[in-house]
Amino acid sequence: MQNNSCGTSRIAGCQFTLLPMSDKFVDIIMGALDEVDTSNIWKKTDDVSTCVRGKMEHVFDVTQALFLHAANTGEHVAMSGTFSIGCPGDTEADAYMDGAETPLNEATSKQISQQAGCKFSLYPMGREDYMDTIYEQIDLSKHRNVEVSASHYATRLDGDVKAIFEALHQSFDSVQEKVSHVTMTFTISANSPSNKT
Amino acid sequence: MQNNSCGTSRIAGCQFTLLPMSDKFVDIIMGALDEVDTSNIWKKTDDVSTCVRGKMEHVFDVTQALFLHAANTGEHVAMSGTFSIGCPGDTEADAYMDGAETPLNEATSKQISQQAGCKFSLYPMGREDYMDTIYEQIDLSKHRNVEVSASHYATRLDGDVKAIFEALHQSFDSVQEKVSHVTMTFTISANSPSNKT
Repeated sequence: MQNNSCGTSRIAGCQFTLLPMSDKFVDIIMGALDEVDTSNIWKKTDDVSTCVRGKMEHVFDVTQALFLHAANTGEHVAMSGTFSIGCPGDTEADAYMDGAETPLNEATSKQISQQAGCKFSLYPMGREDYMDTIYEQIDLSKHRNVEVSASHYATRLDGDVKAIFEALHQSFDSVQEKVSHVTMTFTISANSPSNKT
Repeated sequence: MQNNSCGTSRIAGCQFTLLPMSDKFVDIIMGALDEVDTSNIWKKTDDVSTCVRGKMEHVFDVTQALFLHAANTGEHVAMSGTFSIGCPGDTEADAYMDGAETPLNEATSKQISQQAGCKFSLYPMGREDYMDTIYEQIDLSKHRNVEVSASHYATRLDGDVKAIFEALHQSFDSVQEKVSHVTMTFTISANSPSNKT
């Protein structure tokens, strides 16, 4: 189960829901989809969630950009999902392995400044020593440009959305270099009227 | 890591977000919390998510009841979260091991009829044979009172909310009898204006 990685060009996926807590939720979701370039990933949406698949860096780029554009409306928006790589039961999306390495939404995302809170959990699969890998990543998160704290079953990150997604991407990338099948759950929330407790 | 279970009295937890896609999201969430009896579980909410912990059957009972009451408003409501049991890094909630076995919200939940769609994924941790356990549970889901279909990285369940939560609970319970540390992610959605595709 080890050393199956081929750098950042492995196919990854993310199954997520983008949830604006607003009567205008349809407009906000459709608006975000309009703004975000999804041409280098495979995408399918149904009434429960959206699944995107492609090169790992593009999957993170698109997911981040969708959240940023939705949160940029000023409405309370949450996104919850699971990144996955190397799932033995999954099919391939080879068509989306071609194309540029540079994420298509990087430039636009850079222009949006947005604070958020995020909880994430890493699940390296099929390994008895999985807890060591998890603790190592939690420790590494502390050196990134985000505030890191412990939560039940998860690690909490606070800061700019782009710094949060960078920490998520780096954690996921580091683990998938060592473990073939990795999943990572996350919930990110912006513009909440609740005070952080 | 095996045979650490003690039936349905093991402490489990669920970290989730309840997300009404409505301007009235605060009222809907507060209303659901008012209606649901959470006296036999530990509960903590912050701006990103809510964590509940206690006996496994109470954790499922409270989570289901919160979703049912929120969806019963007729608004488009989603809930996304992760059930967890046996996490080696978690602390205990022994105070909540006492008390009745009968879920406190069962009677009220029975009175609410609500259709929903749900995607869930089981993650048995620390086991090289984890995929066999996952396939076994997907197969078992087919015999339950829900429509079962495949999705990327997940299994989809459609039907009444109570039948969906029963299938989630049974899948989780069966796996935790064999694997000490199990997590299960889920996203359930009701009253979506999107057509199911």
